Amino acid sequence: MTSELTSEVTGDVNGSTTDAATAAARPGPTNGLTDVEGLRVGHASRTGDGWLTGTTVVLCPPGGAVAGVDVRGGGPGTRETDLLDPRNMVERVHAVVLSGGSAFGLAAADGVMRRLAADGTGLQVGGPGEVVPIVPAAVVFDLGRGGDFTARPDASTGEQALTAAQSAPAGPVVQGATGAGTGALAGGLKGGVGTASVVLPDGTTVAALAVVNAFGSCVDPQTGELYALSFGMPGEFPPLRRPDAHDVEQARRRAAELAAKAGLGPGRATTIGVLATDRTLTKAQCAKIAGIAHDGMARGIRPVHTMFDGDTVFTLATGATPAPDAAAFHALLDAAGDCFTRAVGHAMLAAESVSTPAGQWLSYRDAYPSAFASVGSGPTGILDTTTTTSETTDTTTDATTDTDDGESAHP
Amino acid sequence: MTSELTSEVTGDVNGSTTDAATAAARPGPTNGLTDVEGLRVGHASRTGDGWLTGTTVVLCPPGGAVAGVDVRGGGPGTRETDLLDPRNMVERVHAVVLSGGSAFGLAAADGVMRRLAADGTGLQVGGPGEVVPIVPAAVVFDLGRGGDFTARPDASTGEQALTAAQSAPAGPVVQGATGAGTGALAGGLKGGVGTASVVLPDGTTVAALAVVNAFGSCVDPQTGELYALSFGMPGEFPPLRRPDAHDVEQARRRAAELAAKAGLGPGRATTIGVLATDRTLTKAQCAKIAGIAHDGMARGIRPVHTMFDGDTVFTLATGATPAPDAAAFHALLDAAGDCFTRAVGHAMLAAESVSTPAGQWLSYRDAYPSAFASVGSGPTGILDTTTTTSETTDTTTDATTDTDDGESAHP
Repeated sequence: MTSELTSEVTGDVNGSTTDAATAAARPGPTNGLTDVEGLRVGHASRTGDGWLTGTTVVLCPPGGAVAGVDVRGGGPGTRETDLLDPRNMVERVHAVVLSGGSAFGLAAADGVMRRLAADGTGLQVGGPGEVVPIVPAAVVFDLGRGGDFTARPDASTGEQALTAAQSAPAGPVVQGATGAGTGALAGGLKGGVGTASVVLPDGTTVAALAVVNAFGSCVDPQTGELYALSFGMPGEFPPLRRPDAHDVEQARRRAAELAAKAGLGPGRATTIGVLATDRTLTKAQCAKIAGIAHDGMARGIRPVHTMFDGDTVFTLATGATPAPDAAAFHALLDAAGDCFTRAVGHAMLAAESVSTPAGQWLSYRDAYPSAFASVGSGPTGILDTTTTTSETTDTTTDATTDTDDGESAHP
Repeated sequence: MTSELTSEVTGDVNGSTTDAATAAARPGPTNGLTDVEGLRVGHASRTGDGWLTGTTVVLCPPGGAVAGVDVRGGGPGTRETDLLDPRNMVERVHAVVLSGGSAFGLAAADGVMRRLAADGTGLQVGGPGEVVPIVPAAVVFDLGRGGDFTARPDASTGEQALTAAQSAPAGPVVQGATGAGTGALAGGLKGGVGTASVVLPDGTTVAALAVVNAFGSCVDPQTGELYALSFGMPGEFPPLRRPDAHDVEQARRRAAELAAKAGLGPGRATTIGVLATDRTLTKAQCAKIAGIAHDGMARGIRPVHTMFDGDTVFTLATGATPAPDAAAFHALLDAAGDCFTRAVGHAMLAAESVSTPAGQWLSYRDAYPSAFASVGSGPTGILDTTTTTSETTDTTTDATTDTDDGESAHP
């Protein structure tokens, strides 16, 4: 669906059609991060027997992608973010790692580095094959949620997620309790991985992947509605009702109990993610877009960026299409914020309730069943298996494959 | 030697003596980082059979130390630096990891984390023993210098260096070709680990540890003199002569050959280190001090902070003595810059020439022998063995033990 652009783009519809309908922005073919051509996503998860965590790898096309980052949480866990400062030299990254495990999960990036280097992928620093892969990373806190505090991702988890990304044919991103979102919680509800994309009238593709593990709530406590759903594209989200007062009250009580149990502390929560586009951008523009993604995060989660969150967003620009002029960059920026909000919404809708020795957390669906009265009783054909205490400790890896999380199909 | 301070310190000499000589600043007992009570340093190195690299761990006292960082190189390799932003919540770090291996070496921090967590050391995030160790890290590029590009530190190297730090009695820091400085080069000469300290008139201790692996030169190309030696304390450095024109010319030619061979590229060089004090400081003050250390770096190395360097300095404040007022903070800041410069000087003087399948690099001593005509023909009793191709691949670990690098003893 990505149209080829002429070198000067001013927002006009690509000349190949005069159909007014194609002048509007619309979700990409899979409404997800891999609609930016060349990007691949792989997840590795481990559940059961004390485990509820995982790692997600966003793999860039050969040669890497220009990148930026914005860290806005008060309790971040990050790696190789200084390198992305626009003043610094290295422009392209080869993969971005998002992982559970809090700071222990930064080790996942080492596994990704080792495998990419062995494949000869990375920044050339010497003779043939002498490369240093550039792999920034950010982590979310999910320690102990499976029951075992020491059950966390390591270098091998990163390698597994990379393998999943490399071996997958291009396709939709698996959402929900997978990869870095496996153990994610948001404001007392089950969180997880969500994704969304948009193709702009000028043909630019913008996409987001979010791992929602926020301290704050994705749900308006007054109404019980998901904040993010106000920002969906036409027909993107299922037509939910405003929940009954009973659901709202029960959920509020449950969230208060869980918050009291969890306690306050730095880095106990976090929303991280990636914003991507096929445009040619500078590092500075990428950093700007990452900042805008945080605005989108703020519309979907409240509060965000607290002292207890490590909120971090990376931007990747694959450069498949030319650099935007000011008007086109503005359109991209505008779309980026909404894209991230929509990804947050999808994460909350894709979630499924989970129970482990450490606790029980309901998905939005199960906490507010009255909201779904008009769309049917539950998800249809979820590919990604949920976590239960009866699962084995085998690591599951999810490549980008078709997923149906019960939401309406996208054009 | 650290005197106890009253709560209001204004630069007066501690009341226990009126001897004018003690009113002057002087190097600490070992003229090194561990003169800041409670800090320990451990190195792990691997040399021979293609290896020339290692890792250095600076271990904080129980409970950690307040920390800051300043990243000024154009090609940095770092971990957990965002956490140290003064706006963010976590104040105390449990260890700082400095490592060879370029970005691969960031894995050393994972090994340190695992061991500290197993020991119950870290930020409390749950029940007893549920901790997340805070371990920032920075790396230097030394890939392939031993002959094998894939011979680089990993998580186990970090663990070994931590073990060395934990098992050592408090004592002088081993300098030279050890730990993260094992494979270090600076402007074509052998670089490495250097350290220095000062006790201020008010009793405050300030100390620095530098790993000098700079793209730029520590030597004035006009005179052949080490820049840093202009900033030594009385009697601190051996009384060197200005080198003969012959030495200067040979060294210049050799450096040009090496530079041409190495090529230009991001992150091929770096000076990293730690600045420490026993004072009570805020994160913001720590960040400021780290910036000042870079000024000290700039006096010892020229140019610094290039696009090819990853120059990064961490500051640690143990809080053993009270917070300084403005005058006392100024004195600390002033001393910090010189401390780092002096550590750079010691690194260059402690270095020894090395030869591996990848190349041959002379120490300052061997490149400018005429400078040492008045101090004798070579180092006396260097404890740390130099690297030669005949060494085994055994990993050597150096705890903080007595070292004599041929420089005059310090009071």
